[in-house]
Amino acid sequence: MNGAESLVKSLIASGVDTCFTNPGTSEMHFVAALDHIPGMRSVLCLFEGVATGAADGYWRMARKPACTLLHLGPGLANGIANLHNAKKAHSGVVNIVGEHAETHRALDAPLMADIEGLSHPVSHWVHTSLSAADVGADGAQAVGAASEAPGRIATLILPSDTAWTEGGSVHAAPAAAPRPQAEAIEQAAGMLGGPETLLLLGGEALTAENLEQAGRIAAKTGCALLSEWANARLERGAGRVAINRVPYPFDQALEKLAPYRRIVLLGARAPIGFFAYPGKPAILTRDDAEILELAGPGGDLSGALAALVQATGAADSAPALTERKHVPRPSGLADATTIAQALAATIPDNAIVVDESITTGRAFFPATAGAAPHTWLNNCGGSIGYGLPLAIGCAVACPDRKVLALIGDGSAMYTIQSLWTMAREGLDVTVLIMANRTYQILRGELTNVGVQNPGPRAIDMLSLDRPALDFVAMAQGMGVSATRVDEAGALTDAIEAALTAKGPSLIEILV
Amino acid sequence: MNGAESLVKSLIASGVDTCFTNPGTSEMHFVAALDHIPGMRSVLCLFEGVATGAADGYWRMARKPACTLLHLGPGLANGIANLHNAKKAHSGVVNIVGEHAETHRALDAPLMADIEGLSHPVSHWVHTSLSAADVGADGAQAVGAASEAPGRIATLILPSDTAWTEGGSVHAAPAAAPRPQAEAIEQAAGMLGGPETLLLLGGEALTAENLEQAGRIAAKTGCALLSEWANARLERGAGRVAINRVPYPFDQALEKLAPYRRIVLLGARAPIGFFAYPGKPAILTRDDAEILELAGPGGDLSGALAALVQATGAADSAPALTERKHVPRPSGLADATTIAQALAATIPDNAIVVDESITTGRAFFPATAGAAPHTWLNNCGGSIGYGLPLAIGCAVACPDRKVLALIGDGSAMYTIQSLWTMAREGLDVTVLIMANRTYQILRGELTNVGVQNPGPRAIDMLSLDRPALDFVAMAQGMGVSATRVDEAGALTDAIEAALTAKGPSLIEILV
Repeated sequence: MNGAESLVKSLIASGVDTCFTNPGTSEMHFVAALDHIPGMRSVLCLFEGVATGAADGYWRMARKPACTLLHLGPGLANGIANLHNAKKAHSGVVNIVGEHAETHRALDAPLMADIEGLSHPVSHWVHTSLSAADVGADGAQAVGAASEAPGRIATLILPSDTAWTEGGSVHAAPAAAPRPQAEAIEQAAGMLGGPETLLLLGGEALTAENLEQAGRIAAKTGCALLSEWANARLERGAGRVAINRVPYPFDQALEKLAPYRRIVLLGARAPIGFFAYPGKPAILTRDDAEILELAGPGGDLSGALAALVQATGAADSAPALTERKHVPRPSGLADATTIAQALAATIPDNAIVVDESITTGRAFFPATAGAAPHTWLNNCGGSIGYGLPLAIGCAVACPDRKVLALIGDGSAMYTIQSLWTMAREGLDVTVLIMANRTYQILRGELTNVGVQNPGPRAIDMLSLDRPALDFVAMAQGMGVSATRVDEAGALTDAIEAALTAKGPSLIEILV
Repeated sequence: MNGAESLVKSLIASGVDTCFTNPGTSEMHFVAALDHIPGMRSVLCLFEGVATGAADGYWRMARKPACTLLHLGPGLANGIANLHNAKKAHSGVVNIVGEHAETHRALDAPLMADIEGLSHPVSHWVHTSLSAADVGADGAQAVGAASEAPGRIATLILPSDTAWTEGGSVHAAPAAAPRPQAEAIEQAAGMLGGPETLLLLGGEALTAENLEQAGRIAAKTGCALLSEWANARLERGAGRVAINRVPYPFDQALEKLAPYRRIVLLGARAPIGFFAYPGKPAILTRDDAEILELAGPGGDLSGALAALVQATGAADSAPALTERKHVPRPSGLADATTIAQALAATIPDNAIVVDESITTGRAFFPATAGAAPHTWLNNCGGSIGYGLPLAIGCAVACPDRKVLALIGDGSAMYTIQSLWTMAREGLDVTVLIMANRTYQILRGELTNVGVQNPGPRAIDMLSLDRPALDFVAMAQGMGVSATRVDEAGALTDAIEAALTAKGPSLIEILV
C-alpha cells in the first residue's frame, strides 16, 4: 500500500466519503488510488474555487467534512477565496494539496510555490507529510482537525513521493472533543427580560430545535431574538420560530439594534459593520450596551439553550411558531418584490435555499418567512462567487432535497463553471440569476464612502451591461437547461417547472 | 487631494496608464479618483484571475507594468494563480489591494484576511500604506519595484482610510537600475564550439535582435541554439533566427539535450523536468555537462550577446534566417497536424500568438516556424487558465496587432470570464479552443507516474465530455461571436474571417 492508497483509506476510515477535485500531475497517485479503492465519491470541478465552495456547502448540510484534492500552490490559490468564506462560516474542510517530490522542490520547478504560506491565511491546521509511512496518520489528523467544533479548515500537503512510495498504513480520525459548556447561564438569564434585551443567535443555535428553545426564552422573558446578517445555516419557515437578521445596510443595522441595552450572544459575534465608512462608527450596537458572550460558535449551544430555558423558567412557555402563509402567485414585472412573492409561493417543503442574491435579494428573506419549512444559507465571508459552488455541495450532501440558488449576476460570473458540475452530477439545483446587469451593491457603496455624483468612468467600472451577459446561453453551453423571464407570473411557472424536473436548471431573471 | 487621488496621479506620473480591475467597497475611493483624473485606462474584469493574467500579458508586450485593483484578501487570492504565472515569466505587475481601515481591522470583519500573508508567496515586494501622506510615494515605489529587471511583482496594500483621508502627494517612480553586465564572456566564448555545445536562451535574449546575434554565434562556432520550453515572449517566423524549445515530454527532453557537454545559459535556467516521476531523474542535461550561467534573466542580455559575438569573432558571420514557408491550405479532419497547418497558413504578419494549447498544440510551434513573423508567448508558471487573460493584456498593450489565443478546453474553463472583457473592450483577439474534451495531458501523466491501466473512475476524473462543453454558446453568452468546426479547411476559412473582422471571436475546434 503506497502513501496515496493509505490516505484514501484513512479518509474513508475517518468518515470522509466525498472529494471535490481538480487534480493535476502531482495528484495522479491519489487519483489512481481512488480508482481501485471503493467508498469515495469524486466530484470533478472545472476550477478549484468550485471545489472548495462545494466542500463548504457539503459541511453545512452533512455536518461532516468532505475533502478537496487540489493541484499544488496555484490549485490551492484558486480555492482560497471560497476557503475564506468556509472559514468564516465555521465549516470543516479537509484540503489535500499535492506538492512536488522532495528532490524536486530544490529545483524551483515552474509550479513550485510556497504552499504552506498560501495555506496559513485560510487554514486552522496545516501540515506537510514527510514520508509515505506518515500519510495515513496525517490524513486522519486532518479530518480530526477539520471536525473540531465548530468546524475548521485543515490543509494537508502531500508531496508526490510520499504518495507513490510504499509503506502506508491506515488510521482513523480521533473522536471529536466535546463542545465546551457555557458557564454564565445565570448571568445571561438575569440579563434577559423586556424589550430592551436581545438574544443574538448564530451557528448551530439556528437549528429548528435550538430556535424552538430560544422561542421559549423569548416568550417567557420578552427578549428579542435576532441572528447575524450572515448565517452558515438557518432553519426557518412554517412551524418554526422565526428569527430576523441584523440588516446589512449600515444605517438600518444601527436602527435595528438601537433598542437593545443588554445583549446575550449565543454562537454569534457582537454586531459590527461589514466595512468602515468615513466618519461613521464600526460597532453597530449602542455605546452603553452590555454584551455577554454566553457561548462562542464552538460551544455547546444546545446545552446552553437548554440551561437558559431552565434558568429563565421558560420550559413551559410556548414559542411563537410561524404560520404557513400562502402567498398568491404574483404578476407584473419581475422586481425585488415580485421575485420575493414568487419565492414565497414556490419554495418547496424541506428545500435548501442558497442566498447570494445581494442587493436584489434583500426583500427575499422577510417575504419567505411563512413559506414551507426550509433551510437558508448565507455567505459568511463576503467573497462573492460562493453561491453556485455551495449549491453543489448542498445537493451532493442532500440528494433527496431540492436546492434553490439565488445568485446575483456579478457573483455568478465568479464561479460560473459550477454549472457544468451540476449537469455532470445531475444535481437537483434550480439556479435563479438576478440579472440587474450591474454590481449594484457598489453603486450604493460609492455613496456610502462619500461619492455623491459618480461620473461615467466610475459607473462604467461597476456596470455589467456592455455587453449584456446571456446566462441562458452560458448555462446551455455547460449542459444546464435554462430560460429567461422578466415577468413574475412566468417566473413562478418557471420555478415550479424547474423544481418538478430532475437535475439542474437555470432561470435568468431580468430585473 | 486624498490618498487615492495621490496614488492614481503617482501611478500615472510613474508611467502606469492601464488598470485591470474588479473593485469592491474598500476600493471605491480609488474608483472615484479614476473617475475625475484622466490618464488611466480601466479595464473591468469579471474575476480577478482575469485581471492579473491580463497584467502579465500587458507587461510582456508593453515592457512596462500595468496595475491591478483588487478587493481585499479574497480578491487578491483569486488573482494569485496568474500572479504565480506572471512571477515565473518575470513580468512586472503592480497590484493595488484594498484593505479595511485601520480601526476596522481589529474587529475581524467578514472580509478580513491576512493580505500580506497571501501576497508574499507571489510578490517580490509587499507594502501596506500607513497614512494618506505615504500613499503616493508608496505607489511610486511599487512601480519602481515592479520595473526592476527582469520584471517583478509588487503588491501595495491600501487601507481604505489612507485612501479617503486628505494629505496625499504625488511622486514618480525612480529610474530603473541598469541591468548587471555579464562577466564571464571569455569563458563562455571558450566553451562554445562544435555540435556538443549549446547556447540556451531565455527571457529578453529572445527578441528578434538578440536572436540574430545568437544566430551569428551559432554560425561561427557551430554551437546549437535552444530556448526553454516556456518562454514569456519569443520573436520568430520568416526573416528571423529560428530557435527550438527544450521539449516538455520528459523523455524527449532528455534525448534532445543528450548531445550537449558544454552549455552556456543566457537568460535561461538549467533544464529540469516539470515534475518528478518515480525512479526518473529531474535534471534533464547529461551528468557530465559543464553548465555556465553567463547572465540571468535580469542581466544585460543584449550586452552579453554583443560581447559574445565579439569574443567568438562572429561579427561578420551571417545568421541563418528563416525562410517564409507557404503552407497549402489543409483539408480533412481537424487534428494536431491539420490545425498546425491551418495556423501556418494564416498567422498574420506581426501577430501575437498566446499558446495554451497543451497536448493538442505540441505540433503547432515547429509547424509555424516559417510563418509570417510573429510573437509567441508561453505559460512559464504551469498554472492553467493563463491564456485568455494574457490575450486581453496583449491586445490592450498592442491595439494595432492581431492576437491569436490557442487554448485547450480544460484551460479555457479556468478563466472563461475573459471573453466578456474581450467583447467589452472590442479587443482584436481570435480564440481557438482545442476541444478534445479531456484533460489529455493528465492521461499521459497517469502513465508517467506508473499507472498503466487507469480504470473508469480515474478516466472519468480527467474527462470533460459528460456533458460536452459548448464553447460557441458560452462565447455568445458573453458577447463574443463564435463558430464550431471539425474540418481543417473550414477552420482555415474561420481563422481568416476572424482575423479580417474587428473585435474578438472564438472558434471551437473539435479534435
